[in-house]
Amino acid sequence: MATAQLDVVGIGNAIVDVIAHTDDGFLAAASMVKGSMTLVDEARAETIYASMGPGVEVSGGSAGNTIAGIASLGGRAGYIGKVRDDLLGKVFRHDITSAGVEFPTPPATDGPATARCMILVSPDGQRTMNTFLGACVNLGPKDVDADLIARAQLTYLEGYLFDPPHAQEAFRHAAGIAHDAGRKVSLSLSDSFCVERHRQAFLQLVDHHIDVLFGNEGEIAALFETPDFRAAVERLRGLCELVAITRGAAGSVIVTRDQIIEVPAAPVSHVVDTTGAGDLYAAGFLYGLTQGKPLAECGRLASLSAAEIISHFGGRPETPLKDYVGAA
Amino acid sequence: MATAQLDVVGIGNAIVDVIAHTDDGFLAAASMVKGSMTLVDEARAETIYASMGPGVEVSGGSAGNTIAGIASLGGRAGYIGKVRDDLLGKVFRHDITSAGVEFPTPPATDGPATARCMILVSPDGQRTMNTFLGACVNLGPKDVDADLIARAQLTYLEGYLFDPPHAQEAFRHAAGIAHDAGRKVSLSLSDSFCVERHRQAFLQLVDHHIDVLFGNEGEIAALFETPDFRAAVERLRGLCELVAITRGAAGSVIVTRDQIIEVPAAPVSHVVDTTGAGDLYAAGFLYGLTQGKPLAECGRLASLSAAEIISHFGGRPETPLKDYVGAA
Repeated sequence: MATAQLDVVGIGNAIVDVIAHTDDGFLAAASMVKGSMTLVDEARAETIYASMGPGVEVSGGSAGNTIAGIASLGGRAGYIGKVRDDLLGKVFRHDITSAGVEFPTPPATDGPATARCMILVSPDGQRTMNTFLGACVNLGPKDVDADLIARAQLTYLEGYLFDPPHAQEAFRHAAGIAHDAGRKVSLSLSDSFCVERHRQAFLQLVDHHIDVLFGNEGEIAALFETPDFRAAVERLRGLCELVAITRGAAGSVIVTRDQIIEVPAAPVSHVVDTTGAGDLYAAGFLYGLTQGKPLAECGRLASLSAAEIISHFGGRPETPLKDYVGAA
Repeated sequence: MATAQLDVVGIGNAIVDVIAHTDDGFLAAASMVKGSMTLVDEARAETIYASMGPGVEVSGGSAGNTIAGIASLGGRAGYIGKVRDDLLGKVFRHDITSAGVEFPTPPATDGPATARCMILVSPDGQRTMNTFLGACVNLGPKDVDADLIARAQLTYLEGYLFDPPHAQEAFRHAAGIAHDAGRKVSLSLSDSFCVERHRQAFLQLVDHHIDVLFGNEGEIAALFETPDFRAAVERLRGLCELVAITRGAAGSVIVTRDQIIEVPAAPVSHVVDTTGAGDLYAAGFLYGLTQGKPLAECGRLASLSAAEIISHFGGRPETPLKDYVGAA
């Protein structure tokens, strides 16, 4: 096995976020489930945009946020995802490459526009997301850059990628390349509704291809159709060598075959926007893991990275995370 | 004189900001003067964008920020400015209209793209701006909606509008309409380099058309080519009935023919980005003025509005200012 030149390569939906404040009345009137991610078509996206308040545009996408976070921590990272050759696609490419991330995926030259996610942030910091997948539907196995995957210690897959039609194939293709090169594969469950939409495919992927799994309590419960956390943890132990389960303000739990490590959440004076909390938890964790740190230290880096991201609008770090976690 | 149905109408360069962190080394290497606004052509804009870090896109423009601030305070506001019929133009229109602002100016259907301002924020919160004026160069007297101007108690002009070729005519045209309707006219000097580029035109406009003037110490010094603050204040007293001079962390000074009122800056725990500080100072002040508040209270609202804007990225309020100033 050749020495890895990259730490982590992420594969995800390449999305630009449009973030705005909202209140519970707006969510109720628009029949939105607070805290969830809903897929919308372009017409619905236009309707929601017309009715929502002033926004901020910032590059997003779950794995995109994670990978930008790893680069911000000082890690060597790459990204695979599909934008169109339009203005938002240019913004997405600028933001991730200028963060120091390799991003070889060519833009689509026809078809739907670059994906947008309208994120409505409640006064308590919770976010409700409506995603128009746009050009992401064109991501497929041919976009999986085999060289990039083989060069990275770990390939990270975002669960949301189960929604675009050809992306599941891309997942399995990427996992095969990574394992053939002696590398690790990681998955984030992303969203409990996403897990419910694709439960069997998730279980098969986890069973056959995933070494490191991320999820929150709700997603784990959805995966095994059980509210019994301990039972779910035992089942996970049989499936994956390493699992990190986030529990919001209660911190997180790292589970291996023979250990359970509880990790406290890092303190945040004021939660502004929880967008990217899980993504940046994964960033800190995977940065630590690929640097060979002990699991408790991986958890500490994960909690700190998540704390930075929820203290401001958007899912990309505003402070270089290397400095942020170094000062903590 | 009919009762005004609007409080303030602003005329300005309709710009979408692209905001990123920087350090002094980057500014020096790119020959940028820290804290200034520089006009750039599209090629230079592309070069700067390619070299700068990951950004956040948010609607901006000096008067646009002021007008959005007045709406956020609960004022009735309108805006005149030129975008193109492209994606950023749509973003600008969405953001200002969804803030509750009337924005009747039609987009340009050909010519340059919607204006962008690349704002580089230093660790101390100072911002250095590079503006590609784009579609703003097409704003002219025909875009001045006479009905909108006549319906507002006060018309607010941003000094940056001296740069696009036809906008000075639009200024004088708007000022004439406002005064004919018995309304007030206000101007922000915007930037000391802008004042130096157009000193005589500024002096003539202030002398003939301006009732309420905003500027910082550097801009006032540039206007009168004197570093003597007291001498400049005396000259301003002969030109305008009301002048508000901002002094950064030292607060501001409100000058009338027979009064000088010193206003402290509102406390901010951490200055993140000074983008929009002057714009939101003007928002708070003009909101107070058009609500008939005493000048000291106008100054207090101005300081508080500026404090909210410098505590986060971007020049548009993140918190409804009505709540923010109410809680202070």
